[in-house]
Amino acid sequence: MTERVRQILSCYESENPGVKASLARMLNHGTLAGTGRMVILPVDQGFEHGAARSFAPNPPGYDPHYHFRLAIEAGCNAYAAPLGFLEAGASTFAGEVPLILKLNNHEVLHDEKDPISVQTGSVAAALRLGCCAIGYTIYPGSSQAGRMYEQVRGLAEEAKSAGLAVVIWSYPRGSGLSKEGETAMDVCAYAAQIAAQLGADVIKVKLPTAHLEQDAARKVYEKEKIPIGTLTERVRHVVQSSFDGRRIVIFSGGAKTADAELLEQARAIRDGGGFGSIMGRNAFQRPKAEAVALLRSVMDIYKK
Amino acid sequence: MTERVRQILSCYESENPGVKASLARMLNHGTLAGTGRMVILPVDQGFEHGAARSFAPNPPGYDPHYHFRLAIEAGCNAYAAPLGFLEAGASTFAGEVPLILKLNNHEVLHDEKDPISVQTGSVAAALRLGCCAIGYTIYPGSSQAGRMYEQVRGLAEEAKSAGLAVVIWSYPRGSGLSKEGETAMDVCAYAAQIAAQLGADVIKVKLPTAHLEQDAARKVYEKEKIPIGTLTERVRHVVQSSFDGRRIVIFSGGAKTADAELLEQARAIRDGGGFGSIMGRNAFQRPKAEAVALLRSVMDIYKK
Amino acid sequence: MTERVRQILSCYESENPGVKASLARMLNHGTLAGTGRMVILPVDQGFEHGAARSFAPNPPGYDPHYHFRLAIEAGCNAYAAPLGFLEAGASTFAGEVPLILKLNNHEVLHDEKDPISVQTGSVAAALRLGCCAIGYTIYPGSSQAGRMYEQVRGLAEEAKSAGLAVVIWSYPRGSGLSKEGETAMDVCAYAAQIAAQLGADVIKVKLPTAHLEQDAARKVYEKEKIPIGTLTERVRHVVQSSFDGRRIVIFSGGAKTADAELLEQARAIRDGGGFGSIMGRNAFQRPKAEAVALLRSVMDIYKK
Amino acid sequence: MTERVRQILSCYESENPGVKASLARMLNHGTLAGTGRMVILPVDQGFEHGAARSFAPNPPGYDPHYHFRLAIEAGCNAYAAPLGFLEAGASTFAGEVPLILKLNNHEVLHDEKDPISVQTGSVAAALRLGCCAIGYTIYPGSSQAGRMYEQVRGLAEEAKSAGLAVVIWSYPRGSGLSKEGETAMDVCAYAAQIAAQLGADVIKVKLPTAHLEQDAARKVYEKEKIPIGTLTERVRHVVQSSFDGRRIVIFSGGAKTADAELLEQARAIRDGGGFGSIMGRNAFQRPKAEAVALLRSVMDIYKK
Amino acid sequence: MTERVRQILSCYESENPGVKASLARMLNHGTLAGTGRMVILPVDQGFEHGAARSFAPNPPGYDPHYHFRLAIEAGCNAYAAPLGFLEAGASTFAGEVPLILKLNNHEVLHDEKDPISVQTGSVAAALRLGCCAIGYTIYPGSSQAGRMYEQVRGLAEEAKSAGLAVVIWSYPRGSGLSKEGETAMDVCAYAAQIAAQLGADVIKVKLPTAHLEQDAARKVYEKEKIPIGTLTERVRHVVQSSFDGRRIVIFSGGAKTADAELLEQARAIRDGGGFGSIMGRNAFQRPKAEAVALLRSVMDIYKK
Repeated sequence: MTERVRQILSCYESENPGVKASLARMLNHGTLAGTGRMVILPVDQGFEHGAARSFAPNPPGYDPHYHFRLAIEAGCNAYAAPLGFLEAGASTFAGEVPLILKLNNHEVLHDEKDPISVQTGSVAAALRLGCCAIGYTIYPGSSQAGRMYEQVRGLAEEAKSAGLAVVIWSYPRGSGLSKEGETAMDVCAYAAQIAAQLGADVIKVKLPTAHLEQDAARKVYEKEKIPIGTLTERVRHVVQSSFDGRRIVIFSGGAKTADAELLEQARAIRDGGGFGSIMGRNAFQRPKAEAVALLRSVMDIYKK
Repeated sequence: MTERVRQILSCYESENPGVKASLARMLNHGTLAGTGRMVILPVDQGFEHGAARSFAPNPPGYDPHYHFRLAIEAGCNAYAAPLGFLEAGASTFAGEVPLILKLNNHEVLHDEKDPISVQTGSVAAALRLGCCAIGYTIYPGSSQAGRMYEQVRGLAEEAKSAGLAVVIWSYPRGSGLSKEGETAMDVCAYAAQIAAQLGADVIKVKLPTAHLEQDAARKVYEKEKIPIGTLTERVRHVVQSSFDGRRIVIFSGGAKTADAELLEQARAIRDGGGFGSIMGRNAFQRPKAEAVALLRSVMDIYKK
Repeated sequence: MTERVRQILSCYESENPGVKASLARMLNHGTLAGTGRMVILPVDQGFEHGAARSFAPNPPGYDPHYHFRLAIEAGCNAYAAPLGFLEAGASTFAGEVPLILKLNNHEVLHDEKDPISVQTGSVAAALRLGCCAIGYTIYPGSSQAGRMYEQVRGLAEEAKSAGLAVVIWSYPRGSGLSKEGETAMDVCAYAAQIAAQLGADVIKVKLPTAHLEQDAARKVYEKEKIPIGTLTERVRHVVQSSFDGRRIVIFSGGAKTADAELLEQARAIRDGGGFGSIMGRNAFQRPKAEAVALLRSVMDIYKK
Repeated sequence: MTERVRQILSCYESENPGVKASLARMLNHGTLAGTGRMVILPVDQGFEHGAARSFAPNPPGYDPHYHFRLAIEAGCNAYAAPLGFLEAGASTFAGEVPLILKLNNHEVLHDEKDPISVQTGSVAAALRLGCCAIGYTIYPGSSQAGRMYEQVRGLAEEAKSAGLAVVIWSYPRGSGLSKEGETAMDVCAYAAQIAAQLGADVIKVKLPTAHLEQDAARKVYEKEKIPIGTLTERVRHVVQSSFDGRRIVIFSGGAKTADAELLEQARAIRDGGGFGSIMGRNAFQRPKAEAVALLRSVMDIYKK
Repeated sequence: MTERVRQILSCYESENPGVKASLARMLNHGTLAGTGRMVILPVDQGFEHGAARSFAPNPPGYDPHYHFRLAIEAGCNAYAAPLGFLEAGASTFAGEVPLILKLNNHEVLHDEKDPISVQTGSVAAALRLGCCAIGYTIYPGSSQAGRMYEQVRGLAEEAKSAGLAVVIWSYPRGSGLSKEGETAMDVCAYAAQIAAQLGADVIKVKLPTAHLEQDAARKVYEKEKIPIGTLTERVRHVVQSSFDGRRIVIFSGGAKTADAELLEQARAIRDGGGFGSIMGRNAFQRPKAEAVALLRSVMDIYKK
């Protein structure tokens, strides 16, 4: 147990030992074990975008076992997926990689301005499958956000009482926001704060742009001269907005991105005090050897 | 126990022995026992379309016992129906054919753009009636899809814990889709993926056309050159989208079809790696002798 | 479905279709499928007498998989065992042989005049393991019999509501009986009646001797000239005492017996209208090939 | 225990001793202990307005520990915050300041005319974190007010049965009111009455203006010549409307205000018979030393 | 994941992935990670014999943290203790060593011929404390054994459904046995069999002597010429009696023993196919450096 991991765990002062042990399992697993940094592989794209859009670029990914192997070979800290994908491999790979059961999901067959992600798994299933955490997505900015806040409140309480950690994907979307606003600096920091206040142990947000969406917020950012010019500064502000570094906050890149840019982002996350990345499509949509190499390059940056 | 059935069961690695035994009961019953292929008789038309539209073409079908006899004589792997139909014959035919209790149903007395199929049975009823599986319909594309996903999540968890397998009918419908889109290649493969992610042991979808409904999907199909020109290729893509063959996926024909076409479809299902058919109206809406003959012809194709 | 099985099932007129289907699964499985006769392999000796006394005579029996294989190869109608033994093989052999989870067990490390067999399994476990019945032992004649009657009442109610059949081992023992009395004609018939009255679907008793234990009973047997001179007559009387043939009653031989005697017993069971045998030590305490041969010889007798 | 506190507690005659003890813990803590007056520090701004708008003016406030320290150093009677903020410090500061878990929250990423504040905490969490009260916001005037009344009813019942006091933030808002009406005299007094009728032990309202919003109310205020010309008179009317002083009612100032005005308000609250203040942004959005000084000045007024 | 561990896990075919992962966590932790062998540190002596008898020989052991440190420094696969001892350190050492919550305990302040160990912990506590298994003691041979069998049945079912493994201490004791009989070969093998049949994932028994306690058993051991002359042979027979090696069985030495003898025992356990040791008093009743050295010497033997 490194000093850094011990320090991180000490911030979770109200969690029971089971939740702390679950966080420790993720922090002490894989290539980044003990560094206090994390790279998580999430594969919920099949549900979110459909099978072909997710896996046709790298067809071995149609097979659920592929993603377990990818996470294990790359030394990811954890692998996150919906019920079906975990059920299809949790026995074969029992004990080989920390698992996060994604408890809600959303698909795009019905368009809506104000999306909701519905419950597709349970705390009982997470325990039965040997997971160390549950995952849940909220959409701040959607008119249906309240229903998700209330649902994750109950699920988080149940999960924590059983020693499972809680990972919240906080993705601003919905009629309350412009498209640009979904990744705006103020909105992203706000989304991180909401997840933290809801009791998230690990917060996952998108990397923010320098755009400021809400008038009331813009005034404050300008008046207080909050530095958000560089990605590093913006990451630092998100970390600050996540209880001043007392909660693990990791960043996702979204759609497929050029490698150089991904590595640049990782450096900014590291330099801004971020805790790591969650990389899905950029990992599983390329051949495994390439994906492992890329993930290792990102991890190398975090190790420094 | 044939090697093929053993291989199929091994894909259900996180299911308890009870669920595996229920799957084995279906796979090892009837004319196709041991082949790894299935033909299921579903008769939920009475609820879905009304009695006359369902049974007037072949009046003996008004009698619930008729369908048990049809499934038994034809050697179907299972017979699926709503509560009332099963209650009306489950005692007389106890142990003669694996039963699937359809847990939700939809009727057409109230038209709506965004349909929902409501719960009409329970896991307790399925156990009481001696079923080996529950069935549930989802309508991806309906604005009410989320409610069905959440409901089947809970029912599936309850069913599996009692050793029942879970069959999901995944039928895209609703205001999110064009009429043509309901059977589009991309939508059908997406629907199969959603069912698999929800934890379905057996997935039932419609045979897809070569139409591509969603722009985002079309780009991927074209860029990755996914072969979908022939029905065999499209079946293969659905199987791939169902966890790369790790989940049993069977196909329905829908409305009454010419026999030659049905047999042609069965050959495509077989050649594309599909696991079989679910044939309702094409079976029970013709005289029993003819129906048995047709079902046997389909089974003969699957046996090869 | 043979006429004979249909006739037997018709006697279970108050059971739900699930229980009937479970009985049908046992009656229609294996070498005796459809005959209305059953041979069940029970292996609870490990718990009841210890591992060495049970399995040293045929050491492959230490392995739980051995007994599944023996039951399958011999074509037994069902295999009955305690929780641990079923858990150790129920997945590998899912769907290959009907299973009965023995819900209570007794060991001989503490001597007592009035034995009780305690609960070691549950209805939930039986469902999870894919069983078609629960098994339960009662000891009529023990001062603790009442506790077992009350426990099996609750378990049977729960089991039947979930479609599981109920098999009661009715073995008279305890301070109320002499050693000879445990297999006395009057006591054995009484034990069968008690099991039937408790709601047993299948009753298992020991083959009775001509001894009459209780004075009050002896007077009646003599006054009414009940024929009990031959084993066939005694079997007939037990069947009569089990609701005049409306309940399946099968017989156990107990300790290892000479083959000729076993076959003689089988003929008497058959001729007296018994429904079959439950053979444990006589089967699994000899090499598998011999055991299969013996079981087949017994089944040959029952087929006639 | 002072006579004044005893007198206040005697008004809560139907509450169980646990709720009374919780009220006593707040009334007997900090600088105002025993005076019957309270100053509470609430920090739910992070959720309500986002992290930067809340904490950028005084960046140490990003850290949850800061607010515990502020409440303790200033000698506040209690500290109120949402789940995440309390979890992040409740263990470090256990027993140092009475805590109020804010059970519902509202964010401004999705604009709506009729706001609802959704549940983000639970009574179980309040107990687990060692709180002495739950807090809940209602929006009288919103079309969704009824859902909040029903939710707080259930939560209050649960909280009180476990000995927790209930604090209701009653903030008129929504399409039923003009902007000016939100702090109108009639509306504010009405809001206090609703909270009291819902079973609030402590009521929190905004300081009212002399505006009268509703015609039916204005007629009465004019006819009965209710004195509402000065702030002191308006406070007195709110206290009267809160069961004639039988319920603790405290006042919030809202956005950052000049110090002189704040002190003027405190004098009016005191002179009108109010029980104290709840000061958030005016406290935590300035350097800690200044905040402590200001809070102490307010307390000095209440002590007189 | 080594081949050996994978092979061991494959024997737990009916357990859910959570239980398998919990077993994997123990098998893959510490000095013996991946070897398929285990050394567990149990410290329930405080409850069982009192503080002074347990810890006076090495006073640092009065401090609960001491035993966590000892288990971690020695590289034990797991640390087992009652509720209080785990509560006193589970947060400080979260994630550093797999924990087993001992769910029942027995003290010696009231002497009895027929002991019972009573429930002192719960499955919920095990989850809250981050344990990977529950532990439970049964006393075959006690007239109260049945109550313990029934209790562990329920607790094991609950634990497994939540992904916790089940460790059963099977210690023959009570009026049914002579003192010598408690470690007799026949009794020890019987005790292992009972634990396995009750569903134990890991079985803990004492090393048996060559004594044979029960007449009925002695006849079989002599007739079948079961080799039990050496300790290695006796270990092999216990392994055989634990489902022929399909269940992990580990051995305890009991009271303080000379080191040479302990190492000799470890060699016998290894050569007889045993899975390891559980060493309490021989470890914690000596200075830590010596204890670590001894535990490492034992582990060195198991590594070969």
